[in-house]
Formats: sequence, C-alpha cells, structure tokens
Amino acid sequence: MLPLADVHIRDPFWSAYVDLVRGVVVPYQWEALNDRIPNAEPSRAIQNFKIAAGLAEGEFYGMVFQDSDVAKWLEAVAYLLTTQRDDELEAIADGVVDLIAQAQHEDGYLNTYYTLKEPGKRWTNLTECHELYCAGHLIEAGVAYYQSTGKRKILEVVCKFADYIDEVFGSAPGKLQGYDGHQEIKLALMQLYDATGSEKYMRLCRFFVEERGRRQNPHFYDAELEQRDGSTHFGRWVIDDKTYSQAHKPIREQDQAVGHAVRFVYMCTGMAHLAAATGDVKLLEDCKRLWDNMERKQMYITGGIGSQSHGEAFSMDYDLPNDTVYAETCASIGLIFFAQRMLMLQPQGRYADAMERALYNTVISGMSMDGKSFFYVNPLEVHPKACCANHKYHHVKTVRQGWFGCACCPPNVARLLASLGQYIYTVQDHTVYANLYISGESKLELGGQAFVLHQQSNYPWDGDIRFTVEAETPVTFELALRIPNWCEHPALSINGVKVPFDGRIHAGYVKLEREWQAGDSVELALPMTVARMKGHPLVRQTAGKTALQRGPLVYCLEEADNGANLHQVLLPPQAAFEVKEDDTSFGRIPFITAAGLRRDPDSWGEELYRRDTAQQEVETQLKFIPYFAWANRGEGEMRVWVDEK
Amino acid sequence: MLPLADVHIRDPFWSAYVDLVRGVVVPYQWEALNDRIPNAEPSRAIQNFKIAAGLAEGEFYGMVFQDSDVAKWLEAVAYLLTTQRDDELEAIADGVVDLIAQAQHEDGYLNTYYTLKEPGKRWTNLTECHELYCAGHLIEAGVAYYQSTGKRKILEVVCKFADYIDEVFGSAPGKLQGYDGHQEIKLALMQLYDATGSEKYMRLCRFFVEERGRRQNPHFYDAELEQRDGSTHFGRWVIDDKTYSQAHKPIREQDQAVGHAVRFVYMCTGMAHLAAATGDVKLLEDCKRLWDNMERKQMYITGGIGSQSHGEAFSMDYDLPNDTVYAETCASIGLIFFAQRMLMLQPQGRYADAMERALYNTVISGMSMDGKSFFYVNPLEVHPKACCANHKYHHVKTVRQGWFGCACCPPNVARLLASLGQYIYTVQDHTVYANLYISGESKLELGGQAFVLHQQSNYPWDGDIRFTVEAETPVTFELALRIPNWCEHPALSINGVKVPFDGRIHAGYVKLEREWQAGDSVELALPMTVARMKGHPLVRQTAGKTALQRGPLVYCLEEADNGANLHQVLLPPQAAFEVKEDDTSFGRIPFITAAGLRRDPDSWGEELYRRDTAQQEVETQLKFIPYFAWANRGEGEMRVWVDEK
Repeated sequence: MLPLADVHIRDPFWSAYVDLVRGVVVPYQWEALNDRIPNAEPSRAIQNFKIAAGLAEGEFYGMVFQDSDVAKWLEAVAYLLTTQRDDELEAIADGVVDLIAQAQHEDGYLNTYYTLKEPGKRWTNLTECHELYCAGHLIEAGVAYYQSTGKRKILEVVCKFADYIDEVFGSAPGKLQGYDGHQEIKLALMQLYDATGSEKYMRLCRFFVEERGRRQNPHFYDAELEQRDGSTHFGRWVIDDKTYSQAHKPIREQDQAVGHAVRFVYMCTGMAHLAAATGDVKLLEDCKRLWDNMERKQMYITGGIGSQSHGEAFSMDYDLPNDTVYAETCASIGLIFFAQRMLMLQPQGRYADAMERALYNTVISGMSMDGKSFFYVNPLEVHPKACCANHKYHHVKTVRQGWFGCACCPPNVARLLASLGQYIYTVQDHTVYANLYISGESKLELGGQAFVLHQQSNYPWDGDIRFTVEAETPVTFELALRIPNWCEHPALSINGVKVPFDGRIHAGYVKLEREWQAGDSVELALPMTVARMKGHPLVRQTAGKTALQRGPLVYCLEEADNGANLHQVLLPPQAAFEVKEDDTSFGRIPFITAAGLRRDPDSWGEELYRRDTAQQEVETQLKFIPYFAWANRGEGEMRVWVDEK
Repeated sequence: MLPLADVHIRDPFWSAYVDLVRGVVVPYQWEALNDRIPNAEPSRAIQNFKIAAGLAEGEFYGMVFQDSDVAKWLEAVAYLLTTQRDDELEAIADGVVDLIAQAQHEDGYLNTYYTLKEPGKRWTNLTECHELYCAGHLIEAGVAYYQSTGKRKILEVVCKFADYIDEVFGSAPGKLQGYDGHQEIKLALMQLYDATGSEKYMRLCRFFVEERGRRQNPHFYDAELEQRDGSTHFGRWVIDDKTYSQAHKPIREQDQAVGHAVRFVYMCTGMAHLAAATGDVKLLEDCKRLWDNMERKQMYITGGIGSQSHGEAFSMDYDLPNDTVYAETCASIGLIFFAQRMLMLQPQGRYADAMERALYNTVISGMSMDGKSFFYVNPLEVHPKACCANHKYHHVKTVRQGWFGCACCPPNVARLLASLGQYIYTVQDHTVYANLYISGESKLELGGQAFVLHQQSNYPWDGDIRFTVEAETPVTFELALRIPNWCEHPALSINGVKVPFDGRIHAGYVKLEREWQAGDSVELALPMTVARMKGHPLVRQTAGKTALQRGPLVYCLEEADNGANLHQVLLPPQAAFEVKEDDTSFGRIPFITAAGLRRDPDSWGEELYRRDTAQQEVETQLKFIPYFAWANRGEGEMRVWVDEK
C-alpha cells in the first residue's frame, strides 16, 4: 500500500469527513480523555497514565482496556499530522508520548490497569483482560506516530514493550504458551515488523497465530483460570465459550466466521498480513476461506458483521436479522483492515467491494453528520417504541450517543478516517490498483519512475471518474481500476477515446498497461442506476424484501420522510426511481423517490386477527435516504429492507 | 360455573387428554416429585415437606417456590378424583395431605423454603420469594381436594394458613402493608371464599388488590429491600422494575398488560373473581380495560401472551414477534382462568373465544401427544439451527423437555385439563351459556328444576354440535350457545326445524329461551371452512403474511412435511384448501393441503446480495398441521405465519 504521506485526499465527499475528524472528533476525544466533557461519563484514561507515571495520585478507573483509548487517539493524531502538520497538536501528542514513556516499567511492560489495580498479576488473565490488546494499540500508535513525525521516542517505547512480550511469550521452555482473548496484538506486531524490519516481531505474530486454539486438553483459557483459582473478570462464559474469541480450534482448522466479530476480523487482519509478508500459501488459503464465509454468508448489505448482541458476535450462515443485529461500527472497520491486507496478498475486486460497502454504509453511519455522536450498533431496521419495550433490543440505540463508558468505536472511526489514504490504492509489482474512488493526488514510484496520479470524481453521487498521470517523462505501468460489483454497464476511455473492456477485466479490475505520457487521462464511467437488491434465498430476514442501492450507497426509509409504521410500506416491482436533491434534504444529500404503496390501516377495526378480506392499499410517495445519513433528524423508525408488493 | 362433579366429559378429542393426564402425566409427576425419574433433574419437592415435617433429615432443595409443585399436583389429583374415583390415588393424596399438615407450623405458617432454609426470615422478601404464591397454590389445592373428597383436613390446614396470613397482612396498624411479587394469592383467596363463605378471605383479597402499587414513595419493594439490607434472591432488576410484577401503579390506574404475563393474568383472575363476588362495577371496568388491551393488542393468534423472554413478559401493543416470543404455556392457562372469571362477571362470547384460542392452540401445544414432555415457550416460528447459534433464541426449545428445574408448566397443564369441565358452561340466572364445545353430560339445576344437558360433537374437527335436554318434566331455561368469532355462516335448528338467528344473537351467543321438553334437541352447525387469517396492520411481524385457521385450530407448516427453509414458501391468494386425513398423518389428525409456491434457491449463485432479477418460483404442495401437534415428529422448522404471494 502507499504510504499515507504520499496520498493527498481532496475529495468533495471524504475531505469533509477528514476535516470533521481533525476539527471536531479528535479535539472532542482529547477533551473526553481528560474528563472535560460536561455531563458525560468520565474516561480518566489520561489520568490513569498520569498515576501510573507517578505524576498524580489516585486509583485506576475504567475498563480493563482503558489504555487503548489513548493509543487510538494518538494513532489518529499521527495520521492527521501525516497529512497536515499542526505544531500545537503535535506538542500535545508529544506530551502524551512522554506520559506513556513515563508509565512504562523498567522491563518494558506498559499497562495502567495492571500497574495500578493488580500489580504482580501480569499475564494471569489473558482470556479476559486485554493486556496484549492494549499493547497492540500502543504499538499501532507508536508505529504511526514514528512514521508521521520521524520521532523515535514512542517507537522505542513500543519496541521495548514488544521485546519484553517476546521474552515472556513463545513455545520455548519456560515461556508462556498463551495468547490474548482479544486479537489486536497480531496485526500490531505485523505493523511493527513492517516499520522496523525486525523479524522477531513477525515470528512472535506467527507464534500467536499458531498457538491459538492449538491445545484443547486442557485449553489454555481453562488452565489459566485454574491457575488463578477460578476468578473471572467479565464472567465465566467468556472463558467457557471458546468460539467467542476464535480459540475453539486451531486457526488453520477454522472455516467459519464465529464469535466476537471485532476479534475475528482483527485476527484475520494479522493472519493476512503475515501471509503477505511470508508468502505462506497455506495461510493465504486460511484467510480466503474465512473471508469467503464472512462475506458470502454472514455480512449485511451495509457491510455490517456480527448478527447478534450476545458476545457482539456472528451467529451462523445466512442468519442476518435486521432489527436485533449488532453490526458494530468497529467490526466493519476491522473488516476494512482485513480487506486491505487481502488486497496486499492478492488484489481482487471483491475485497475492495466489501471494503467500500462497509466504509460508505456502516462505518460512516457510526458517526453523526456533525461528528459529535456515535453508534456502536448499526441496525438495518429500527422501531423506537419497541426498542424501549422489548428487551431483545436493549443494545440498539435509536439516537447516537456521546462518549461511551466502553469507548471503542469513536476513536476507531477517527483513526480510520484519518488514515483513509492508505486504503485507496494497492501497488503490486508494476500495477497500481485503484480500490476506492476518492479524489486527490498520489505520489508513486514504480520501477524507478516517479509520477503523480490524479483522481477526480463526485463519487459516491456520480460514477464518472477521471485519472490523470502527471510525470516529467513517460512512465510505464499498469493501471487497474476496480469495476464495482454494483455496476452493470461501465465504460472506459483513454484521452477521450473509448476503450473496449474485452479481455481487460481480471478479478474485478480493468487493467490498462501502457506507456503513459504526461497528461494522459483515463475516464471511467460507472453509471449509478438505482438497483433493487435482493438477499440470498437462504437469508430468512430478506425474503420477500428489497433494498435500494445506488453506487456504493445502500438506502433506507426513515419515519421523518415517510411517516411511522414502515412495515406497512410496499415497493411495487414496476416502481420507477428518481434521484433528487433539493433544499429540503439535509446536507443536500441526494435522495431517491418512488411511487409506493401503503397497506391501509384505516380499513381495520379493533380486532387483532381476522379473515383475509382484500386489504386496501393506498398510493404513497416514498423517499429513501442513504443509510449512512439516518438518525440525523431526531428519533424515528428506519428500515433498509422494504416489503415487495 | 358448574361444579366439576356435575360435568361429565365424554369427548372424542378431550377425553384422550384427560386420560393422558390421569394415566401418564399425574403418575409421572408423582414420580418426579419423589425424584424417581432416571436422568432427570431432581425435584425433592416431597422430600422438602418430609424434612419440614420432621420425618426426614436434610436440607431444602430447589427453587424458592418448590412447594407449589406439590400443591399443583394435589390440585390435579383432586380434579381427577372428582370425575373418577380412584382409591389408590386417593390414598397417596391423603398421604400428601398428612405430610403437608405435619409441615405446618403451630401458628398456621406453611412453607418449606422458609422453614428449612431461612427460618426467622418469613415475609422479608415478598417481592421475590413467592411465599404468598406458594400459599395460594396450597389453598387452591386444599379447596379442590376438599370439594372432591369431602375431607376437611386439608381445608382446615389451608384455612389456618389463610387465617394466619390475614393476621399478618392488612391496613390496620401493626400489620404488614405488603404484597407478593407473584400474584397467585388473590385468586386462591377468592376460591377459598367461594368454598367457605368466609368473607375475611374476600376482604384479604381486596386488601391485596388495593394495596398493590399504591405506595410509591418509597415503594413497598424498595422499603422491604432496605429493611433486609439490600440482599436479593433473583437479582436487583426484579425489585427495580415495578412493571415486572404489575406494581408500578395502583391496579385501578393500570390500563395496559405489562410485565410477567403469568402474574398479570393471575392478578386479573383474582380481580375479576372479586368483582363478580362483590358486584364492584369499577373493578369490573378495570378488568375489562386490562382484558381489552391484552386480547386486542398483545395476544398471539395461538392465544399465547408474553412476547419477550426477558421477564417472561409483555412488551408493548402490537409487538408480537413470532420467533423470539415467550408465550409461556402457564400464561395461556392463566388467560383461561381470567376468561372464565370474566364470563362469570359478564357472559360475552369474546372471553370464551379467547379461552378457546388459548386452549386449542398454546395450552395443548405445551404438551407432547404422549403426555411425557412439555414446552414452556410456544413459538410461532422456529428455525432450529438459529436457535443454537443466535442467543436471542436461548429460551426457545425446539424439542419438548421432560421435567424442568423450574417445573411450573407441566403441573399447570395437568390441573387445567383435569378440571376442564369447569370451563364448558357458565350459568347465570336462568341462562346456561355454552362456552366450549366439548361433548358430555352435565347435571344442572335452575330455579329448582333439575335436568341433564347432553352435548355431542366431533369438535374441533367438525362444527356440528347437538344439545339434548334430558328431564323428567319440562324445564324452562335459556340456552345460550357461543357463535365463535371464526365462524361465518352458523346455522341452527331445534328438533330438526331450522331456526333463524334474527335478533337472537347477543354478545356472541345465540340465545334460545323456551320450555324444553325431555328429548328436545338443538343442532348448531358451525361450518369449519379454512380461514386465511391476517394480523392487525400495526403488527409488524404479521405484515404480508397469512395464517390458516380452521375452526378454533391455528395451523402451521412443519419441516417434516414441507422441507426446510419455510421462509421460501409462499401462499398464493387463490390457493384452494383441502382438508384431509390419511394413514400417513400421525394420530390421524386432519391436515390442510394447498398449492403453494417456493422461491427457488437454485436460481442463485454464491453472492449474498444481487440485483433483483426475476427469481424463479416453483410450485409446491403445502401441508399444514394443527399448531398444537407440532414438534411431535422430531426437530425441524415450523411456522404459523406464511408469506403471501
């Protein structure tokens, strides 16, 4: 992938998001980390570091993984500084780096929970207590901050920590043959390997991959539990249910996405990165098998994953309830990480298709349009009254929340959006793969040839994309442009001359290899018709229903536009769609209208059940808005999948 | 209502059930209560009484309401002995009576949990610990056993207990102004009042009705919690959520069915009985208001109530999920109690309609056709694989279970079926209301005239019902026959002569007043066409779906007959129905066939979502069986509400 510093986003859609992260989200989160948000649950995450560093008095506060909030904030800051210098922000971040360094133990260990609350109990509850998870986030932040600023201090801190972890864990006699319940450490070690070139980090990652679920009798979790006399942190089920953290069998025997969705995609991200770094073909197959199951049998049309709230987890193939869904924002972010590593391994359009689906729908649905509130859970159907009355919806919020006691999603959104440039292109050999259609300029160097690739479009509202090559001398490379799976009739021209697709499409990309002259341009036209989408016949929850998609955006009905009782709405098969944008649409977001029907509730009496007499249906104008924009106009019903007539 | 002893059931459908209760269920439960069922969770309910009686050594075992299992068994035995003498069974029951009497304290108190496990802690946790609930079941059993056998011993035991309760509770200074979390005591006190004529039991019932939810600051539950230093038995939420046990506001201000469904219907049963006994018009209105909400907005087509598992509770108006439903067997039994008391208050066909709906669908669905296994939860849609994978179905069993750790439903089914004769007729003034069409003979005495009313039919398979009057001399009375709400074109004749309905139908009954001669017969024809049923437009979960009902029976599709993936099945509007019975149908149960369609899964590739291309539908023969008979042929999918074409 391209270094973030070399990709400059200048996009009518995404620049606003990056600006929001820079101007609102990251500053807000800094206030939150320092407990300066009125009427919000305190975070105390910075305070914990201060106490651990000996700079303040007090007790640890918060979740066992509270440290990771600081790490994710620092990582987001690193990305923001990469794309735009900001001395004031950098000074704050340097202060955080100093604080982290001061909280580090002599031997390299670094974790405020265990330092303050359970000293002497390090590595006694890996199953539940996120020690390596927090380590992983610190490592990711350290790598990002080093790469952004060139300052080595935090890199040294995290290398020292990773070196210490490497001393503790491993298969050699006397080492701890264990692994974390939450799988962040693997992907972080691969980032550290990339940044330092030090193979021991890759080897440690491989150990964690291979050890996971290997021993079953006794299982590591049970052995660990026995050693600490049976005490648990979150509850016994976390230890008992090995699938929850994908430790039910060796990774290489796993063939299904199971358990906590974020853990699953973090695991796969690390595995795919390891496979890409080592060329391990068997591991590539493992990754593909798990990807296939996730994407083809357990992913929502919005790119959400994790269909049940219990364990924030996958349930089973084709079980995709729209209302009791979890679809955590973080899980879709992890899906994007996984997809990016798969693209490194084997550029195939389908990985980028899923990345785009998750990004344009679930991920940005996770944040309000003002950047100030967030969804953890991203339902595809919401009935606010039922969410209050029926406990099965206890996890579903109908209004985005400020800052959470367990605050994983907001900083995860921030770090993804701040590093968005990393996801646009994959470069492999002499080919530049364009995965995402996001406008801007990227500096590239292929086979000793330096050039700038410009991309310009009004995506996702319009599918006409222009690439221009800016080079001092002619450059030879292959430009591979993704033809999204939603597009039926793409067209292509080079310097205004139409180019046929025959034989040029490979694995979802149209490939154009030539000697490019300065100023050469490619126009890719991806007509964005409104598509009536259907779910696989084995999905019970989409049977007889249609969802609208235009370009990468999935649409939904909201009560604000269509009234209550959206289950009464029908979309006839012949309905024509119009895409409109007017002053009444908030943020001037294009919407879709269609002539629909509504089952008429007035033709019914008091009885709850009756014989089927022809029920009236009345004509009604339907207005669909992009899914990501829902819940920005107060509380109300919403649904993505609409009944067919 | 008619005394059970005067109603002799001789019915092709129900006699088999009563025989099953007599021959299988009650003997099995006796073995269970004595812990003689191999491989089953022990009950120890009898053993608890033996220990409390000083006849055995040991500790209390089981739920805090374990005593009620013995009481419900004894009550069922009492009903069985009423309709058929059995010296051996009576001897066993007499032994149980002796045991109960020996476990009673000098002051009348009787509860093995508090006697053995928490002596000295009586009445300290009414919110959670079911002391008055167990008392109520003992009272019901005592009344039934006394009425059946004429033996006063158990009646004296429960009167002594009730007298003691009356000393403890009340609004007078120094008395405990509290009430039980579970509301069984009210209806039991009214039974005791009916049996003894002692008004203090009625006054005590009125106290419990009026005190409930009256004081809110502090609420009785919170005051009680504080007094016992904050300890809880089941968890804090039981105390905090006042709606769970309908104590969130005074009963007379309640206008919605809320909370634990069984508690709700038990409460209403007691209230309605009290209103009937006192002629309290305001209380009658309270009962009607709550009935209306339950029946018109919160009842399943199967007569199930309680749409969520959390708290085994109602959720809200028109929220009736078919798959995550609770619909406890006991709740529908309680609904029948409530309906019966409403019929005492004000005979209206709608109460009997709902009683019939619950009885023929949810209640008998609760028991397997061999009487050996039971459902607690009665879903209207089941997908066994999802029940394993998705935690929101953790409460749904796809196969009936033997005996439960918390064994409320099996003995409740037994006592209802053993006393079924009580529900057939309501007698008011000079009118005999026929609520249920169950064959047999009943001895009646109206205005000094004694006669026998014969009822004969092949209900619920056939709607032709014949009543015959057997009398020594002509008798004058009004016979009121319910015209079920499912019946479109009833017909009536007396002694073979057709009688028009004009002006004769009042509140769901056709009324025939005359001087009946010996041998006079009435033929009521209730044609049982197959009805395509629809749900109210505000019910999200029935939108676009149809359920079949024939007579009182709701039908369903099972995987055993229709293959898996029942969500792919469509019922076209023009589908013709045939009612069949052949050797292949288990138990020779009539089934319904229809020409349906199935969305063809073979016309789809690997992708999870795709553009809507005309999906194939293939013709398929559908076979519907009565809902009550589902899950008698192994595990498989089932659904009541089928997608419309």
